[in-house]
Amino acid sequence: MLEILKNRGTVRNYSEKEVDETLLNNLLEASFQASTTGNMQLYSVVVTRDQAGKERLSPLHFNQPQIINAPVVLTFCADFNRFSLWCEQRNAVPGYANFQSFMTAAIDAIIVAQTFCVAAESKGLGICYMGTTTYTAAGIIDALNLPKLVVPVTTLTVGYPKVPPAHSDRLPLGSVIHYEKYQDYTPEAIDIAFSYKESLEESKRYMEINKKETLAQIFTDIRYTKANNETFSTAFMEVLKKQGFLS
Amino acid sequence: MLEILKNRGTVRNYSEKEVDETLLNNLLEASFQASTTGNMQLYSVVVTRDQAGKERLSPLHFNQPQIINAPVVLTFCADFNRFSLWCEQRNAVPGYANFQSFMTAAIDAIIVAQTFCVAAESKGLGICYMGTTTYTAAGIIDALNLPKLVVPVTTLTVGYPKVPPAHSDRLPLGSVIHYEKYQDYTPEAIDIAFSYKESLEESKRYMEINKKETLAQIFTDIRYTKANNETFSTAFMEVLKKQGFLS
Repeated sequence: MLEILKNRGTVRNYSEKEVDETLLNNLLEASFQASTTGNMQLYSVVVTRDQAGKERLSPLHFNQPQIINAPVVLTFCADFNRFSLWCEQRNAVPGYANFQSFMTAAIDAIIVAQTFCVAAESKGLGICYMGTTTYTAAGIIDALNLPKLVVPVTTLTVGYPKVPPAHSDRLPLGSVIHYEKYQDYTPEAIDIAFSYKESLEESKRYMEINKKETLAQIFTDIRYTKANNETFSTAFMEVLKKQGFLS
Repeated sequence: MLEILKNRGTVRNYSEKEVDETLLNNLLEASFQASTTGNMQLYSVVVTRDQAGKERLSPLHFNQPQIINAPVVLTFCADFNRFSLWCEQRNAVPGYANFQSFMTAAIDAIIVAQTFCVAAESKGLGICYMGTTTYTAAGIIDALNLPKLVVPVTTLTVGYPKVPPAHSDRLPLGSVIHYEKYQDYTPEAIDIAFSYKESLEESKRYMEINKKETLAQIFTDIRYTKANNETFSTAFMEVLKKQGFLS
């Protein structure tokens, strides 16, 4: 099991092979057994297999090809709608139209998404997370008809890998773990954390192609810019308001 | 693998057996190979083993006994501090002091936490999530010395189970999965979703003990009340401001 976890990698390119419905349900069922706050299961999963559905979602994921290419797209939503409807139907007054309840449901949804990934990978499937989900949540809400108290928090593309996934580098263990208290990073500790990543040929190639003097500038100036992050922050706050999680 | 996922359950009561340091690092290393946004690894894990550390954390988790009882407590934090320090040290201007960046890092942290759970359970360990983490994040930040751009999002207690974990009920698969579009729940669909849970002897016992006429009232009136959720919402928003993720 640990070997599967350690040798995994993201898969963006899928073979023609379909993902059998029984297998998909089996994987989802296994992932729904993961921990969930107060056993409330504050999530819903929207399964997209139809071409039309994928085409609606594709621009919302910035036309990254894996949405169209994957046989299955799963949108994981924080969902306090179902639970609140139950409360109302049982003479109980739900109090979940607030930010803490959104966080609770979002955590539930991510726990399920990641359990699904592990389950899927153990069966030879490959997955890719779409971080774009929280950037364009308003559009996804429209595309999937999500009611109030439902917010998409992540999306997975799922299918059989066309080629085996590449293993990708990680920070040294000691740069991520703290004992008893958080030890803030000295300049030397930062060098130790990032030097391997910076030494990779791939990193050097990105710097050359993009004419950047450091790898960090690729992130700040191109991939995850302040301007984009601020725009997406405002948009996501608006979504939380519109869906009823923020007053 | 699917059988392990399907038959798991939360473990709140741990045996005396220690969790070996090599095993713990091995499990963490495996979980750090999970997907992470742009391979930025926007998380840190604080390991608490010392009695004094557990005693500091215990009231922040409402004195639930598993904090003191477990050999290991892991606090998973959304962390944009390490990455931002690297950017600054490499002549790049980080733009991560915003809400979207918090969401990104929180998702990264939860993905790692859940991968750790699966890894741990595959080795015979048991875990319990502490949902209290986002309720009392301000206190946890003080207890663990978390700097700006670091916010605790969940906590796991980890150890060998004293007794095998009980399997707990889940909603019917069809009540959680939607095909192509979200189908909002009719009153009948709500009955179908919750009737099994309501029929359990355990549910009936809770209602009797708490003198409530429906199971839903246990949640709204006792376990997850509107007043608490609103108090914790305000507190968590304050934490996001104080840690630099909200202006």
